[in-house]
Amino acid sequence: MAGIRVARSKFLDAQKVSAARHFSSSSVIMTEQKYRVERDTFGELQVPADRYWGAQTQRSFQNFDIGGPQERLPLPLIKAFGVVKKAASIVNAEYGLDPKVGEAIQKAADEVISGKLIDHFPLVVFQTGSGTQSNMNANEVISNRAIEILGGELGSKKPVHPNDHVNMSQSSNDTFPTAMHVAAVTEINRSLLPALEDLRAALDKKSKEFEHIIKIGRTHLQDATPLTLGQEFSGYVTQVANGIERVKATLPRLSNLAQGGTAVGTGLNTKTGFDVKIAAEISKLTGLEFKTAPNKFEALAAHDALVEAHGALNVVACSVMKIANDIRYLGSGPRCGLGELLLPENEPGSSIMPGKVNPTQCEALTMVAAQVIGNQTVVSIAGASGQFELNVFKPVIIKNVLQSIRILADGSRSFTKNCVAGIQANEKRINSLLNESLMLATILNSHLGYDNVAKCAKKAHKEGTTLKEATVALGFLTPEEFDEKICLNTYCEASL
Amino acid sequence: MAGIRVARSKFLDAQKVSAARHFSSSSVIMTEQKYRVERDTFGELQVPADRYWGAQTQRSFQNFDIGGPQERLPLPLIKAFGVVKKAASIVNAEYGLDPKVGEAIQKAADEVISGKLIDHFPLVVFQTGSGTQSNMNANEVISNRAIEILGGELGSKKPVHPNDHVNMSQSSNDTFPTAMHVAAVTEINRSLLPALEDLRAALDKKSKEFEHIIKIGRTHLQDATPLTLGQEFSGYVTQVANGIERVKATLPRLSNLAQGGTAVGTGLNTKTGFDVKIAAEISKLTGLEFKTAPNKFEALAAHDALVEAHGALNVVACSVMKIANDIRYLGSGPRCGLGELLLPENEPGSSIMPGKVNPTQCEALTMVAAQVIGNQTVVSIAGASGQFELNVFKPVIIKNVLQSIRILADGSRSFTKNCVAGIQANEKRINSLLNESLMLATILNSHLGYDNVAKCAKKAHKEGTTLKEATVALGFLTPEEFDEKICLNTYCEASL
Amino acid sequence: MAGIRVARSKFLDAQKVSAARHFSSSSVIMTEQKYRVERDTFGELQVPADRYWGAQTQRSFQNFDIGGPQERLPLPLIKAFGVVKKAASIVNAEYGLDPKVGEAIQKAADEVISGKLIDHFPLVVFQTGSGTQSNMNANEVISNRAIEILGGELGSKKPVHPNDHVNMSQSSNDTFPTAMHVAAVTEINRSLLPALEDLRAALDKKSKEFEHIIKIGRTHLQDATPLTLGQEFSGYVTQVANGIERVKATLPRLSNLAQGGTAVGTGLNTKTGFDVKIAAEISKLTGLEFKTAPNKFEALAAHDALVEAHGALNVVACSVMKIANDIRYLGSGPRCGLGELLLPENEPGSSIMPGKVNPTQCEALTMVAAQVIGNQTVVSIAGASGQFELNVFKPVIIKNVLQSIRILADGSRSFTKNCVAGIQANEKRINSLLNESLMLATILNSHLGYDNVAKCAKKAHKEGTTLKEATVALGFLTPEEFDEKICLNTYCEASL
Amino acid sequence: MAGIRVARSKFLDAQKVSAARHFSSSSVIMTEQKYRVERDTFGELQVPADRYWGAQTQRSFQNFDIGGPQERLPLPLIKAFGVVKKAASIVNAEYGLDPKVGEAIQKAADEVISGKLIDHFPLVVFQTGSGTQSNMNANEVISNRAIEILGGELGSKKPVHPNDHVNMSQSSNDTFPTAMHVAAVTEINRSLLPALEDLRAALDKKSKEFEHIIKIGRTHLQDATPLTLGQEFSGYVTQVANGIERVKATLPRLSNLAQGGTAVGTGLNTKTGFDVKIAAEISKLTGLEFKTAPNKFEALAAHDALVEAHGALNVVACSVMKIANDIRYLGSGPRCGLGELLLPENEPGSSIMPGKVNPTQCEALTMVAAQVIGNQTVVSIAGASGQFELNVFKPVIIKNVLQSIRILADGSRSFTKNCVAGIQANEKRINSLLNESLMLATILNSHLGYDNVAKCAKKAHKEGTTLKEATVALGFLTPEEFDEKICLNTYCEASL
Repeated sequence: MAGIRVARSKFLDAQKVSAARHFSSSSVIMTEQKYRVERDTFGELQVPADRYWGAQTQRSFQNFDIGGPQERLPLPLIKAFGVVKKAASIVNAEYGLDPKVGEAIQKAADEVISGKLIDHFPLVVFQTGSGTQSNMNANEVISNRAIEILGGELGSKKPVHPNDHVNMSQSSNDTFPTAMHVAAVTEINRSLLPALEDLRAALDKKSKEFEHIIKIGRTHLQDATPLTLGQEFSGYVTQVANGIERVKATLPRLSNLAQGGTAVGTGLNTKTGFDVKIAAEISKLTGLEFKTAPNKFEALAAHDALVEAHGALNVVACSVMKIANDIRYLGSGPRCGLGELLLPENEPGSSIMPGKVNPTQCEALTMVAAQVIGNQTVVSIAGASGQFELNVFKPVIIKNVLQSIRILADGSRSFTKNCVAGIQANEKRINSLLNESLMLATILNSHLGYDNVAKCAKKAHKEGTTLKEATVALGFLTPEEFDEKICLNTYCEASL
Repeated sequence: MAGIRVARSKFLDAQKVSAARHFSSSSVIMTEQKYRVERDTFGELQVPADRYWGAQTQRSFQNFDIGGPQERLPLPLIKAFGVVKKAASIVNAEYGLDPKVGEAIQKAADEVISGKLIDHFPLVVFQTGSGTQSNMNANEVISNRAIEILGGELGSKKPVHPNDHVNMSQSSNDTFPTAMHVAAVTEINRSLLPALEDLRAALDKKSKEFEHIIKIGRTHLQDATPLTLGQEFSGYVTQVANGIERVKATLPRLSNLAQGGTAVGTGLNTKTGFDVKIAAEISKLTGLEFKTAPNKFEALAAHDALVEAHGALNVVACSVMKIANDIRYLGSGPRCGLGELLLPENEPGSSIMPGKVNPTQCEALTMVAAQVIGNQTVVSIAGASGQFELNVFKPVIIKNVLQSIRILADGSRSFTKNCVAGIQANEKRINSLLNESLMLATILNSHLGYDNVAKCAKKAHKEGTTLKEATVALGFLTPEEFDEKICLNTYCEASL
Repeated sequence: MAGIRVARSKFLDAQKVSAARHFSSSSVIMTEQKYRVERDTFGELQVPADRYWGAQTQRSFQNFDIGGPQERLPLPLIKAFGVVKKAASIVNAEYGLDPKVGEAIQKAADEVISGKLIDHFPLVVFQTGSGTQSNMNANEVISNRAIEILGGELGSKKPVHPNDHVNMSQSSNDTFPTAMHVAAVTEINRSLLPALEDLRAALDKKSKEFEHIIKIGRTHLQDATPLTLGQEFSGYVTQVANGIERVKATLPRLSNLAQGGTAVGTGLNTKTGFDVKIAAEISKLTGLEFKTAPNKFEALAAHDALVEAHGALNVVACSVMKIANDIRYLGSGPRCGLGELLLPENEPGSSIMPGKVNPTQCEALTMVAAQVIGNQTVVSIAGASGQFELNVFKPVIIKNVLQSIRILADGSRSFTKNCVAGIQANEKRINSLLNESLMLATILNSHLGYDNVAKCAKKAHKEGTTLKEATVALGFLTPEEFDEKICLNTYCEASL
Repeated sequence: MAGIRVARSKFLDAQKVSAARHFSSSSVIMTEQKYRVERDTFGELQVPADRYWGAQTQRSFQNFDIGGPQERLPLPLIKAFGVVKKAASIVNAEYGLDPKVGEAIQKAADEVISGKLIDHFPLVVFQTGSGTQSNMNANEVISNRAIEILGGELGSKKPVHPNDHVNMSQSSNDTFPTAMHVAAVTEINRSLLPALEDLRAALDKKSKEFEHIIKIGRTHLQDATPLTLGQEFSGYVTQVANGIERVKATLPRLSNLAQGGTAVGTGLNTKTGFDVKIAAEISKLTGLEFKTAPNKFEALAAHDALVEAHGALNVVACSVMKIANDIRYLGSGPRCGLGELLLPENEPGSSIMPGKVNPTQCEALTMVAAQVIGNQTVVSIAGASGQFELNVFKPVIIKNVLQSIRILADGSRSFTKNCVAGIQANEKRINSLLNESLMLATILNSHLGYDNVAKCAKKAHKEGTTLKEATVALGFLTPEEFDEKICLNTYCEASL
């Protein structure tokens, strides 16, 4: 491979400084490293010899030393770039792209889609707000890999040129938002919706399993009229089921693709019909329905569709926050909490105390929710900040959207498997609380009249006895009559 | 009227202290005021003689001296309570409510719906999180007003009892969330959607009016390839049109009513079928489609539907932030800004300088947007904070949702009327900028080749001349040829 | 009074439309209303005859029909305008302002400061982002009231001109931010800090009252090693005490005043030394320390000091959220919750069930906290949005800051008085839970060894007995020995 | 090394599934991998043979498959754990820890501090909310590495036990928050404050460099009275300088350490004085001042100090958002924008158009700001969510705080070096705009009187000429007189 030099480059030094500052996790090998020379209109640059990226990627890498590897653009976006580049190449074939070049591009793009070239995408979120260099990163990696496939020389731009061939009929300004939408729609469909569906199903299973367990209700955290544990869980089922609907309801607008708008939305330098064809091709490649955006100006200059989609993620976050909070309070104890639920024990909760089961899955999920609710603020601010023909907060928008999708999906999956599926009702405790409760009093109103019932309840409250004991002591009912009247099912029947 | 005493009550003193602290805008009359006595299970209380509210309202008014009149629950919620109480009374008639009592309740409820009893609803947002006392406020006001209609004595609870009659078959826990949904759906339909439709139409009119004005595009705030001013505005049209769709998409879930769930969702103490009937009755009264919530447990314990609806408002806020920002920058000047748009002059911008038109409507609208984006955080936190059978952040949720609806609606209406409708294109300036721009160079690529064009552009940039001057000076084209090649329409045609 | 006409003006019609749309709480009297004519550089306008405001106020009132009375600028800001105008007049006297005019201005300004002219300040938050018309509102009201005092004709601008005299040496661009800072500093000192100090003291009283009550600790909501209830409350005391420090720590920058910067910060059209003198005069009038801002460009174009101050309010919100949440969970019950605290009963919690004390003050305070945390987002967005020489999100910033201050102050005061002061420990319940707990086991480790203790705990957990019973049953200790070893104080001593 | 088996473990399979789902960047090698057995109270687990972590880390790793490597706890926190463990070991030596064990622990801890063991800390943010397993991760890694140093067998827990020795006198509940504070204080001091100081200095240099360049001011984006470019930059300098003060002002509370509180704040199982000594030792090791928290209950159950610190970061974010926005608008062009500043060209902005310099550093920095403002919401929600004796949102709090610190630091550094340092004033353009402006009119007021000046300005505005041309044409002044009167310096002098 020509153009490789063994050198202590400026790049390496920059990295060392950075590493010294941050103790970067990427191990910085201080031995000599090999480089090749890549060039762009600004001149020559040294690029690590074992990386496919070119000069524009390298330049961005050096100019935006912000946040280190943890701030790299997420994998699903990189994969989406693979999809877009492959689809463009297929459509470009119709418009005259050399088939040999096109095939090599598609092979290389497939490798990007597979994820195995991820280490060739080093750019961080905090770069140019158009993501231009990340589009070039995709062009450069695919070009170099295609060149390699065709036996050419890396960095030669022959026979596969990053701009003329890989980026043909495209602009960063339409490609990046297209990749944003492809990534978001894909992750929602492949990762989030199945995870939420699993959670819904697991909660529903519990709701049915618990449908005959009558328990005390709680409003304002205070004892209220009873309901079944199954009913309580049915509320969670509805929340998650609605969440699935909410996320799906944002897909129509999220499935519109900017591709074909090129630099400012007019479609200059692209072919008529390119936009429709590439949307169809992307649909075919992903198995998901995409359409060309009806208005390309909006598609470049605003990201309302992603703000909207994150709005749905935000509701899901609120839902799981509520569910996880309920479950951990209901599972609190073992002796001094509510103790109505027994949560699966996944780690040692205490070295000495049996039964101390920390609700760690609930904790993880509520932290996920807090992150997503905050990400909403990021996405809203960034989404509101478009200027004229371009919104230049693209990378931070998609980073936050994809993070929210992933942690909600993973968090829900983990919560389902490691918590919900194993929840057991502590029926003994539930019964005991229910019987101690004075709320049963309300059911006696129709039998004894409000005033008499109030007497019983007040006596029980004052003396610390059960309602039954007080009612019997006051001579209103025999124990047998009490049990007969308190047919708890009537409490909960209305909605059963 | 019996029960009225002339007294310096504790209530008055509390008010005076509060007034002294905050200089409350409600004029505190230090002269003697008349009171009547109302009572609840806690005992007697003095209530201003000229107010219909009763003891529970009074108690909340005294116990929650937080924020003063500006924090009162918003009018649309109070009106929605009127709707709910009227509908309940109509349905209760089927279940045996005395028709005379029912009719009086309906008349009183109509007055609540009309807004004219608003001064009888003094409670603030920061009260009990269930809004129980606001439900009681509605019950007490309607009861007392109905009593008055029927010639009875205020505070006597006869012949119309606030609980037994006005609140019949209801609980605060299902009534308050029902009123929340009724208020939000009504305001969205009556106020927000028409306002957004007007804005969309006004922008669309401008888009068509400007469709032949070719102008410089701007990406990264830097000169980019041209588009028409009409195309630029078409992006705004799409944003607002999508916003309307987004808000509408949340209505299916927002139109589900909790009514019938009573205290914890089981429907205890209400009649079978009451939930379906009251939803139908509310639909009839409002002319809007409402349904009973399929799961009442969710409807009391979570407010995901309102978080979702606010999510759509949040997107609209982001959209109008972008639009208003663009318009004020495009209208900046008169001499030292971009100056492409002439905004209507609504107030004196400068005492001496003609042409200083401050984009005040844009400023108001972007402040609206900032408020709504922040309200999203409030609604999300509050929505995520339900506990067991009840979410007790109800008042703060609906306050923020209704504020966002109203200021977006009013702000859009004001912006449409006082700004968008009067925007004029400064065609002279637009043309001048376009001609000075070097971006026209890209169109010459196919005629002169990339390298020659770059020479022309660099010469023009260096010498501060136009591209035409440089191209002619370098001998590539005659002035006539230049004008012929630069057929600007080709830039913008793709999407025209 | 000349210039008054009886007319159905356009203004009235606009109001009627608005009222019809919103059922505005301000009673719209449909009878004939009196008007006088006021004028500005744009021409004549009808102003309600009984209001002091002039043409510029009226114009803004008509052009920004956004949100209605609930969105009016808050009283403390209006009062601060009174302070600024009075101080300016005093300083201007040194620079040649006619003493007679000056005295009348000061008298009128005193009435603004007293709050009694609040109904003459009708402008809403969502107006021009510089608040220019609110500054003019102050100028117009003070000018007309001063004219009235001096026996002149309203609207004549003689002998007290709103611009030449009341606004002398000032610009809206420095006056509005000065009023913002004066209002915020005043409210923090007069309202928030005393309220927080009261809360701190009330919590501290309880902490000392409860210092000998040993209770179960809870981590992850699960039973943990004991501490005293006093220690638990001492954490709250520290949070509030730190909150006071945090708020105070923002005052140095918040006390810097923009006054003297005039239009863009250069101080054009004002006198040398005016800035220092007016800051001194404002300090004298308010009894609080203010200084002139060292850099006026920053003081007009950014509002970092208010973002910072709100950041401290945001921490206080987080603190009280935690405290109120703890207290309501500890007070949950009466039978089926934790029940360690008895909260004061301020309203009927349930018509039939004694002991159902809804933690309504906690609910109000947590809603306050949610609002403040969301307001932080508003203030941050608005604060970040300054452009060149001016930030034009001023009204929405100060509205949110003052709302947060007030509801935190009022909410804390209400919580202190109606909840904290009356909290009682349910010692019986606390003891019972502590004794049932198995966490006492850890204290036996040093006596019996880890393995034996684990045996006891596991037996107790499995059989549902107390640790003592299990330990005795296994023969490790006699009941007497057990009681002797479990000297609970050792648990809590470390930090006592 | 005993205990190593060659096996396709469940762990590997879990990883494969995860990898298949997410195309994790960590290359999953499908060949046989070596494992050793580690155990905790739950039983045995296979751990990769080349990792120092033990059973509890492995268990958390498997149970919380949320977010993948990008969500791992940040390096500065891991390093802070190294500091805490080293300090604990030094203090424990005074209380009887075997010196040989202590020294080995300190050596291993030094390696953690150096960052070179980072690949042995695989746990993600979304785990248990106490961070317990991350504390155990530190204990396990240090124990195993210390065992290795002493020639023992990994996983044997001899002679260095993760709990008994490395975690001696500590609890996860006090160690994790201690590490949070140590990490935050360290990063603020080492990374953020120097970066902000550099930015401040670079802006100050420009402010001085530009102090004689008079330019048009802009308020409401509209032409206003002039100021110098140096004055404009002086506002930025003040913002950053205040930002540094703001961040420093949070350090007193952030420097308080929870260590010594152990499980619930009582300090059970630790030695008297341990808390003071370890704070002193950590101060010595880091060269930064730390103190023991005066109230340990607050230090475990709340994270107000971190919410407060992030509040200061949030203000810095707002400041740099304003500064970066101004700079990119002032640098907009090259032909059709404001064009007053020339920004350094770091990447090709356009392949054909010279002078298209995209303000990419501004874009990166404003994205940083948006992220930080959103992180504030996360930190506030999480900070408000403590329950009883413990806040279990610890990992998500510190993740967001450290991310904000790092991206603000890196972003500022990048912006300083790649943008601010290279900014040049386009004096020709600045002059041209200033002269075209009509705002110069205000300076003529004292010479010609308001009415005559207004005539000149209106004529110039109408005819599109300069003010000078109009004034001369109207015969008020000769060109020479005009130039003499318009002594621009007087505009800007007030504050020079």
